[in-house]
Amino acid sequence: MKSSLTDEMITLARQAKAASRALARLTTDEKNHCLNSMAQAIRQNANAIKEANNRDMEAAKESGLSGAMLDRLSLDDKRIESMASGLEDIAALHDPVGRVLEDRTRPNGLRLKKIAVPIGVVVIIYESRPNVTADAASLCFKTGNATILRGGKEAIHSNTVIAQVLVTAARKGLKSFPEHAIQVVQTTDREAIRELLSLTEYVDLCMPRGGEGLIRAVTECSKVPVIKHYKGVCHVYVETEADLRMAAEIVMNAKVQRPSTCNAMETLLVDVNVASQFLPIIVPRLAEKNVTLHVDPASQLILSNIAAKIVPATELNWSTEYNDYILNVKVVNSLTEALNHISQYGSGHSDAIVTQNETTARTFLQEVDSAAVYWNASTRFTDGGEFGMGAEIGISTDKIGARGPMGLDELTSYKWLGLGTGQIRG
Amino acid sequence: MKSSLTDEMITLARQAKAASRALARLTTDEKNHCLNSMAQAIRQNANAIKEANNRDMEAAKESGLSGAMLDRLSLDDKRIESMASGLEDIAALHDPVGRVLEDRTRPNGLRLKKIAVPIGVVVIIYESRPNVTADAASLCFKTGNATILRGGKEAIHSNTVIAQVLVTAARKGLKSFPEHAIQVVQTTDREAIRELLSLTEYVDLCMPRGGEGLIRAVTECSKVPVIKHYKGVCHVYVETEADLRMAAEIVMNAKVQRPSTCNAMETLLVDVNVASQFLPIIVPRLAEKNVTLHVDPASQLILSNIAAKIVPATELNWSTEYNDYILNVKVVNSLTEALNHISQYGSGHSDAIVTQNETTARTFLQEVDSAAVYWNASTRFTDGGEFGMGAEIGISTDKIGARGPMGLDELTSYKWLGLGTGQIRG
Repeated sequence: MKSSLTDEMITLARQAKAASRALARLTTDEKNHCLNSMAQAIRQNANAIKEANNRDMEAAKESGLSGAMLDRLSLDDKRIESMASGLEDIAALHDPVGRVLEDRTRPNGLRLKKIAVPIGVVVIIYESRPNVTADAASLCFKTGNATILRGGKEAIHSNTVIAQVLVTAARKGLKSFPEHAIQVVQTTDREAIRELLSLTEYVDLCMPRGGEGLIRAVTECSKVPVIKHYKGVCHVYVETEADLRMAAEIVMNAKVQRPSTCNAMETLLVDVNVASQFLPIIVPRLAEKNVTLHVDPASQLILSNIAAKIVPATELNWSTEYNDYILNVKVVNSLTEALNHISQYGSGHSDAIVTQNETTARTFLQEVDSAAVYWNASTRFTDGGEFGMGAEIGISTDKIGARGPMGLDELTSYKWLGLGTGQIRG
Repeated sequence: MKSSLTDEMITLARQAKAASRALARLTTDEKNHCLNSMAQAIRQNANAIKEANNRDMEAAKESGLSGAMLDRLSLDDKRIESMASGLEDIAALHDPVGRVLEDRTRPNGLRLKKIAVPIGVVVIIYESRPNVTADAASLCFKTGNATILRGGKEAIHSNTVIAQVLVTAARKGLKSFPEHAIQVVQTTDREAIRELLSLTEYVDLCMPRGGEGLIRAVTECSKVPVIKHYKGVCHVYVETEADLRMAAEIVMNAKVQRPSTCNAMETLLVDVNVASQFLPIIVPRLAEKNVTLHVDPASQLILSNIAAKIVPATELNWSTEYNDYILNVKVVNSLTEALNHISQYGSGHSDAIVTQNETTARTFLQEVDSAAVYWNASTRFTDGGEFGMGAEIGISTDKIGARGPMGLDELTSYKWLGLGTGQIRG
């Protein structure tokens, strides 16, 4: 006998599938009209949203959530306005559905067009921040996908009200808007995720956003495709022929401009030929910003007289994403050693080389198997906005489906249209 | 404690991952040189291949394999030559690796290039036909992917010898060819598949080819992405405004030109307005080819006086892939009913509409959510060769990664290269 939880998830997924068929019929204007209506409604319903958020905040405080988590959870007028303007931004972006990706006519006259289409039903699993509800739902809506949203249980009231506001506004603005285009999982039972992600008949994709633990748990149990990145262990390799002034700027930017992001550098690799020159320049600058260094023995030797927080690196450090003012430092003997280190400890996210030697740079660009590989630029650029995508639903380190920043184009699939005049196969 | 099977699979997967790094370095000329050497070696080692195949055939006969299965398993001179020329064909095709998919320069001067790269390590799981060993290995090799091949246990000797011949020839022709680029799973233990497909750290993709049972079992147990199609339940919809002469040719082609293929039609949908005119024309032609019809009540009424093998359709029939001289026939009252039928019972593979009405055709093309949707053409065209891809490793009905026929381009992923002059993020 199926449990009521199973039934609940099947109902959600079936409704989403039906909605996805209706969504695929909407025109770009209709979708943009809905998005602008949604933005207005978020503003008009700011009080209701704050009220729901207060309920979540009260419960979260009682359950002893940390200050950082409480900050993520809370919605003030500024964050609500930012949700609303985010919806308007997405309305203003191009519609990726219907783009012609290829167009060829075969010798028999059959015309084949490869066109971008919605993926279908997308499950988004995320933690804490209720603004993700509006961001993810609107990106999926713009791309013609139905979404099933599963936020953290601490944000359930906020998420539910935000989704209600969006759906109500869209339906008011457009009669043909399918009400199940945006749905929030109502149960906070953890088993719901497993149930939902077993429904391969209805669900086309899952995108988990959050800590590595959440993402591993989702990936482990999912029967539907998952696009994700576990973590960002990003490297900057300062090569023998680096412009050391440029290298210093890139290293500082990659580490301290915003250490909490997944595209921030966690490990600095310095070529042995420039290490005794570069490390004494860069380490005091990092020390000024209170960066703690986890260093290999060769770096330690060079840095013995430099005032900085320096500890010996452990094996575990090399594969750790700190998201903090902490940096691993290692001296490497060659490009090959740098490539091997990145291959062994990297996360396939973003890695950079600083060098004036084009041949060396080309080898690095070709051989580093990461979503984004930079030559003389900071790893911090791996971001939908910085890539010119206009918006981003996340970053992928996967190789099937989207890789790197995921904007609107990356939320589509494709199909082949065969336009004939009676062609049959001989 | 890990079992020896686990150890064996980890070793295979690790070796493949290491080989994939070496493969990514090969030039197009080097790869083509290897493929041509492989082709020659297949010809030169035809006797050794036939000998291994004889051992498989003997064992298969003893174990009572069916005649059809024995035919699939057997390799004669013609099939061996076809393997060899297949390798040469792949050498002659373009190299999809390194294609520039996008190239943009951001306002800060950072140039972003999106380029096609190998996927990495690909596991191919297949049944019976040993020629798949050469086909799959060479397509993956051309695209810079390392392959781990797992054929049916009945073909283990043939598969092993073919892979040995390929690897030996490639190494002889090119010193830098990584010997683990092409590997055959040696154990016939079924548990090996589960072990291999849990190694997400090393394996990037699995492509199962074979019956629905095999594919479902693989998909169910895999932790790595799987690209596949379960089955092909393809439809032809003869609409009110169809050119009935054209419709008859398309229907005959889609059903009887080669019924055993996944892109053959299994269900004919006929609009009520033309059913009493069209069915009496087409059914005698189908009957001539010994096609058995499973029909709905409306069709049965129309066909009461026609001489043909006609049985009432069961609910199960509508979602069955016969791969045989059997066809479901249903009269539908409207385009909407046709769309709903295809949505409910179809497999997302290939579906066609025959009509002279462009508006109706456009609606069908837009709303049918299948890998290939045809207007006035046979469903039989869904094929890498017919699409101009030159070769095909399979057909996908998935929406993440490749969809439809999978040629060389579809065996690549991509990465972003960021070419800077010292850019940092503000």
